[in-house]
Amino acid sequence: MTDSTRPAKLSVSRRQRSTPYTPRVEALGVTDYSIVNHTILPKGFGRSVEEDYWHLREHVQLWDVSCQRQVELKGCDAARLVQLMTPRDMRQAKVGQCFYAPIIDQHAAMLNDPIIQKLADDWFWLSIADSDLLLWAKGLAVGYNLDVHIDEPDVSPLAVQGPKSDDVMACVFGEAVREIGFFKFVHLDFNGHPLLVARTGYSKQGGFEIYLDDSSLGLDLWDAIWEAGQAFNIAPGSPNLIERVEGGLLSYGNEMTRENNPLECGMAQYCCFDPNIDYIGKLALGEINQHGPDRMIRGVLFDGDRTPACANTWQLSVDGLYAGAISTAAWSPRKKANVSLGMLEKDYWTDGQVVTVHCGDGTERSGVVCTLPIQ
Amino acid sequence: MTDSTRPAKLSVSRRQRSTPYTPRVEALGVTDYSIVNHTILPKGFGRSVEEDYWHLREHVQLWDVSCQRQVELKGCDAARLVQLMTPRDMRQAKVGQCFYAPIIDQHAAMLNDPIIQKLADDWFWLSIADSDLLLWAKGLAVGYNLDVHIDEPDVSPLAVQGPKSDDVMACVFGEAVREIGFFKFVHLDFNGHPLLVARTGYSKQGGFEIYLDDSSLGLDLWDAIWEAGQAFNIAPGSPNLIERVEGGLLSYGNEMTRENNPLECGMAQYCCFDPNIDYIGKLALGEINQHGPDRMIRGVLFDGDRTPACANTWQLSVDGLYAGAISTAAWSPRKKANVSLGMLEKDYWTDGQVVTVHCGDGTERSGVVCTLPIQ
Repeated sequence: MTDSTRPAKLSVSRRQRSTPYTPRVEALGVTDYSIVNHTILPKGFGRSVEEDYWHLREHVQLWDVSCQRQVELKGCDAARLVQLMTPRDMRQAKVGQCFYAPIIDQHAAMLNDPIIQKLADDWFWLSIADSDLLLWAKGLAVGYNLDVHIDEPDVSPLAVQGPKSDDVMACVFGEAVREIGFFKFVHLDFNGHPLLVARTGYSKQGGFEIYLDDSSLGLDLWDAIWEAGQAFNIAPGSPNLIERVEGGLLSYGNEMTRENNPLECGMAQYCCFDPNIDYIGKLALGEINQHGPDRMIRGVLFDGDRTPACANTWQLSVDGLYAGAISTAAWSPRKKANVSLGMLEKDYWTDGQVVTVHCGDGTERSGVVCTLPIQ
Repeated sequence: MTDSTRPAKLSVSRRQRSTPYTPRVEALGVTDYSIVNHTILPKGFGRSVEEDYWHLREHVQLWDVSCQRQVELKGCDAARLVQLMTPRDMRQAKVGQCFYAPIIDQHAAMLNDPIIQKLADDWFWLSIADSDLLLWAKGLAVGYNLDVHIDEPDVSPLAVQGPKSDDVMACVFGEAVREIGFFKFVHLDFNGHPLLVARTGYSKQGGFEIYLDDSSLGLDLWDAIWEAGQAFNIAPGSPNLIERVEGGLLSYGNEMTRENNPLECGMAQYCCFDPNIDYIGKLALGEINQHGPDRMIRGVLFDGDRTPACANTWQLSVDGLYAGAISTAAWSPRKKANVSLGMLEKDYWTDGQVVTVHCGDGTERSGVVCTLPIQ
């Protein structure tokens, strides 16, 4: 249990879905849960976020990230629908590649930021953040009368993250895992079943995600990795708040919502304005691009004791004027300061800008703006 | 804390949204939370579900149901889009009426079951269950090129439920509340601000929902009702598991998912097949209607001790054959039995059918099928 929990336990229902790994997660003493995509995400196992942070940077962790649900697009118009949904140029996409991609509406408002995996020319998985992107895809397909099958398959990603990930994975899947390129995937055998294994994950410490597409193999897969990991000091874990803030890894619903566009989220490299490409929101995004965004995602380091977790955004000010707001904060034992992510207004987004942070605990702290990732 | 919680607390983040009432809910000692529509829903306050059940049936409760988010449709094509989205005949809908309405896709799969409120001829609120119906509506509007503004307004419903609701509400909003018809709404003054007050709610004990459309008034509204409620033995509460199962009130994600159609959910009276009406999924739903549904929502009463909460569906069998599955179960102190909701296959859905319930705790119990509500 961390200091970043509500004073209440999570209720049980079918609606808040268990995962193929839940029995192991609960046996290992999970203490905090989050809900993502109607699915439980283990967040803590009785150690502090700081202990988990060091462990993740030095060893290897096993994360139940089944909540990263897949939106499957399959059929004649699958590639066309994928390109309609994202400003990222998907024209040269090859099978076996993973693409981090903003998804926007006609006003260029962020709807999700999945990793798109191209399984075949007419077959994609969008590994989604916390919004029902399935419904957006289905609405578009009906409205545009597209010939595409859209569904959520039985796929439950399991992440192996940390510097010893290659060693652990090689024990289970063979030496071939070491050859998988960054943001690439291959299919590797597990107990006679080919599983999609990608060099991806929600940390900057390296690692893999295994896209288990048969829930009945969940406990066997967990156990095989767990056993192999014993020699490498494996621990159960979760996307780590400190590590992701320092790494500048954004979380949909936290750092960005429909009130944000991808340019202010620092995703300019994923926004294509080539006249030969078309997607929903291109006109609106082009206009924002012409005059430039009004705010930008940044890191903010600030003084003082550990803060409580951000249950809401916390305002930033400079000389009493609104300068932006942070959305996630955590105390970094490496920086010996609080680290945070937030949107800074144009006049205040320069590296080194001093701001006042109006924390949720009522305190005011002195902070400094920095670019991402936080070094 | 009830026996229906996970062994872990809910983590804090902006993504799992607080509500205007959260400070009061936490001060009153909330012990269980659920997440609905990315928003925290208080589920328990340290009393048992059974104590809460009796209290709700005899007195009055105040529920933070801000998680019932509104999908606002406004503009020239709002009425057209509403009708496209639901098989319910909305042609005669009048301003001031509330409509329980299944929302389906082109395959007649359930996507949500909101209460639709008609605010004006070109203005609707869909008070949604747990799926991002906003994205379905937006996708359709883009695909069909409809002229409609779609957004989630700052609206946080607060429910007053139980037999003494009229008395408490009259103290706060005046005697006019007593005149509000079932599934009707009016605007009533609160501190100079007109609030939408509807005679609706997720219980069968009577009551109201107040659609607060200005978060800054949240604590004042809570306090006014709380204070007025002191004379009527008011308590903080939540949709009650036992009461909703007995009442046959379904929960999207529990009793039904995209794997179900509205006919098997017992919503035939909300499915119009008039040739002069058109909506998405009409063809598919018509085909199901012609041969009749293969399964049907039913109650199942079963023996033995209190069961754990359903984290998954539990199978039902008759003579070793699959007979259906239940999705929510609770022990009823009134029936002195476990009561549950589930889908029964056609051969087994008759009132009085004896079934074997394969409970999540590994036990097998003898059960009896009954129609809803459970008397």
